[in-house]
Amino acid sequence: MKQIDVCFTPELLHLHQVENSIVVVVDIFRATSCMVTAFAYGVSKILPVATLAECRKYQEMGYLTAAERDGLKPDGFELDNSPFSYMTEQVAGATIAVTTTNGTLAITRSRAAVKVLVGAFLNLGAMADYLRNQQYDILVLCAGWRGKPNLEDTLFAGALVERLQEDFLILEDSPLMALRQYQQAKDNLLGYVANSSHVRRLQRLGIQKDIPYCLQADLYDVLPVLRGNVLVRM
Amino acid sequence: MKQIDVCFTPELLHLHQVENSIVVVVDIFRATSCMVTAFAYGVSKILPVATLAECRKYQEMGYLTAAERDGLKPDGFELDNSPFSYMTEQVAGATIAVTTTNGTLAITRSRAAVKVLVGAFLNLGAMADYLRNQQYDILVLCAGWRGKPNLEDTLFAGALVERLQEDFLILEDSPLMALRQYQQAKDNLLGYVANSSHVRRLQRLGIQKDIPYCLQADLYDVLPVLRGNVLVRM
Repeated sequence: MKQIDVCFTPELLHLHQVENSIVVVVDIFRATSCMVTAFAYGVSKILPVATLAECRKYQEMGYLTAAERDGLKPDGFELDNSPFSYMTEQVAGATIAVTTTNGTLAITRSRAAVKVLVGAFLNLGAMADYLRNQQYDILVLCAGWRGKPNLEDTLFAGALVERLQEDFLILEDSPLMALRQYQQAKDNLLGYVANSSHVRRLQRLGIQKDIPYCLQADLYDVLPVLRGNVLVRM
Repeated sequence: MKQIDVCFTPELLHLHQVENSIVVVVDIFRATSCMVTAFAYGVSKILPVATLAECRKYQEMGYLTAAERDGLKPDGFELDNSPFSYMTEQVAGATIAVTTTNGTLAITRSRAAVKVLVGAFLNLGAMADYLRNQQYDILVLCAGWRGKPNLEDTLFAGALVERLQEDFLILEDSPLMALRQYQQAKDNLLGYVANSSHVRRLQRLGIQKDIPYCLQADLYDVLPVLRGNVLVRM
């Protein structure tokens, strides 16, 4: 039987066999929540890039660009890392080059997988429905924060494990821990993450309205998938 | 104020500043539970070594030896990795060379710390009482399983965080996750770990009696500490 596993941070990805798995990359605050929102608002393609310099290069080539470092937008980019910045007609049909502190790295490191999908609470239901019928193992890759595990990505992993636990085996402790953390949290996700390092960081930066938005489940029927170097809607 | 942090596996240790911290190494099933038991039964010194070959070298020099790989004792060593094997007069006053799959590695990787202590549920209370008055940050290093996080070491980390949360700041998500996992588990630790990968592994090997033993809190007033390359009782 197929199994579902969780990797708490890209720093542990070398311990997993991504070659035989579908990888679901998650960076709840806020890269993958942005990407799901972007496709829901009509973005055509998203190109995840590693560095600010690379992102500027694509800007010169005419791409829209989005950038974030440590929660803030560096000067000279059109979009920041807030899902609300994608809720505009400007993005419909656009190709956007994106670089963020954690999320884009997690995507680029997963390229050897059978398939790389972008997950968030916003598309949790669509993701679960799609994965349920797949014949491969699933690995949820949490983007974490600078290599360390974080609470909100772990909670998403647990939510996905909960929805798929009838269809996939839980053989490792990481998915078990994520599942139980989510079960403890799910009746009050917002309260549960209130003391987390990332929520405090976002609150210091004055962008706390993104937090409840990114914790909403099943808002969009969107499945971003990596094709070559580019994310597109499935 | 001082902080308490948790590292879920030695694979993430490079993300932490051990130089300014007291590191508490934990490998509940079963290396550090064995070490605490060994000192409680009068062992004089424990020498953690990385390889079986190294362990055999110390055997030739007259040391008692204990070894474990994948839960089992390789041929030719006196003691295995069960705490019950230390409950004998044979060990009183002895120096024992020990090598295990995960626990000894976690200890040797922590050598740069201010101090390296060995923790288990068995000495949880003594550990908390000692640490409460220390002036350094604390890092709980979970040995995990082959580089991946595991449930039981995370639960110990959470138990220690709970006992020290009035005296140390929780600034990172890892100690918060460990604390909440422990709070969910503490009324029935044995039931909570029943589905974990390690418990299933130990049950397959027929050594399940070690499990409830290793989950008992505050059995011994023993604090093993690393001095040079050797663990001694503080």
